[in-house]
Amino acid sequence: MSNANKYELLYWPGIPGRGEFVRLAFEATKTPYLDVSNQVEGGIRQILALKDEKATYDADGNPPALAPPALRIHGEGKNGKALVLSQTPAILAFLGEKLDLAGADAAEKAWIQALALTALDLNNETHDTHHPVSTLAYYEDQKEESLRRATDFRESRIPKFFGYFERVLKGNKEGKGRYLVGDKLSYADLTLWQVVHGLKFAFPKELKAREEAGEFPTIFKTFFPSVPEHGQLKEYLDSDRRKPYSKGIFRHYPELDRQ
Amino acid sequence: MSNANKYELLYWPGIPGRGEFVRLAFEATKTPYLDVSNQVEGGIRQILALKDEKATYDADGNPPALAPPALRIHGEGKNGKALVLSQTPAILAFLGEKLDLAGADAAEKAWIQALALTALDLNNETHDTHHPVSTLAYYEDQKEESLRRATDFRESRIPKFFGYFERVLKGNKEGKGRYLVGDKLSYADLTLWQVVHGLKFAFPKELKAREEAGEFPTIFKTFFPSVPEHGQLKEYLDSDRRKPYSKGIFRHYPELDRQ
Repeated sequence: MSNANKYELLYWPGIPGRGEFVRLAFEATKTPYLDVSNQVEGGIRQILALKDEKATYDADGNPPALAPPALRIHGEGKNGKALVLSQTPAILAFLGEKLDLAGADAAEKAWIQALALTALDLNNETHDTHHPVSTLAYYEDQKEESLRRATDFRESRIPKFFGYFERVLKGNKEGKGRYLVGDKLSYADLTLWQVVHGLKFAFPKELKAREEAGEFPTIFKTFFPSVPEHGQLKEYLDSDRRKPYSKGIFRHYPELDRQ
Repeated sequence: MSNANKYELLYWPGIPGRGEFVRLAFEATKTPYLDVSNQVEGGIRQILALKDEKATYDADGNPPALAPPALRIHGEGKNGKALVLSQTPAILAFLGEKLDLAGADAAEKAWIQALALTALDLNNETHDTHHPVSTLAYYEDQKEESLRRATDFRESRIPKFFGYFERVLKGNKEGKGRYLVGDKLSYADLTLWQVVHGLKFAFPKELKAREEAGEFPTIFKTFFPSVPEHGQLKEYLDSDRRKPYSKGIFRHYPELDRQ
């Protein structure tokens, strides 16, 4: 089997979403992967099968997934079969070890996992700014609640999380503001970078005001510009493999941004 | 150092909360641990220091934590120092390997991590039923929104998650309905058990109605009663080490339950 077929990402087509954290790990390490729904004719059927509410164990013995993304890794499952793994943090932890993005020792591995989980918490809270009541209902039907939640998010949650990551970046002397842990790129850096990138899209006025006020200088001036320097990330970000934000986690509703 | 001092749980005193998932891993394996805020005079100061918004790296070189719980593991950090690890899923993954609760091989390890994360997602969504707008504001100040969110949670999210775990339990033939993965207890089982236990407290009418209607029979009739048979869990659940639910994640507001 060619390397290009070893890793198959199973995620919705056309949006970055939670699949993006996994894509960035591949692109930052120049690792070939197949983005099934975006690259395979009819690939969407595999994603629909994955989240089918009647799905049970697959032919390779993998338990069902609650939701995409999932990653199929050929040769890593039971008896040399394919492993199918869901849940973004679990995918990143597994892949991080394979792609040398998980830290130099057991302590770094544990810290990187915790930091990626914290960045993903911020990602999830971003989603809830436009869906505070129900993930099934339309934004327009929970707009009142969204205005309240987004205000709280901008005023209290963004500074809490950004302040935290600023302290971690500044305190890690080895990383020189570029890395959360140690002196090399990890999947925690990629995860935080993507969340900051998405927040700049969703809340442009809020983020710009804070950056211009000199808040979180390590994040905005050192960390954020340096992450894309790794692997083929710059080329990726300019390519059509990088999907635009739309009706996913990061949405730009001007009324939810700083006024 | 005695074994009793190797593991120190740093979490709020007097409530189960997210610390409970870590406690269950210790109790299910009869592993000694120190529950700092509940067992050490003045231990609460360590939890306050942990979440201090100015905290930076500790003397052992550990990055700060955004929030409790954290686990201090003596001898497992850099240069034989203490490792301090935050984020419940990261703590459970680390501890799961140490306490033989993490699966028999790499595939099981990955599945168990994904399943525990999914149960923790349900835990987090439970919290948001009484805090849909702001974690800082009182429930009473977001009661309208809570009524909407709790209705959606009961009618759409509980069946989605329970249906998923029912399929996983039923499809794992080796586990005979008792285990999510393989034929022995994992931290995913403990995590799911605690969330079901908490939901029975928070939404007693909803859970009872579903159980009596014959929904999710594997979860209710086989899995849920069998988990406490492991280690010293039964003794623990009857002890005063097990804290009652109060103003934490699982709250019983009758108006949010099925009417």
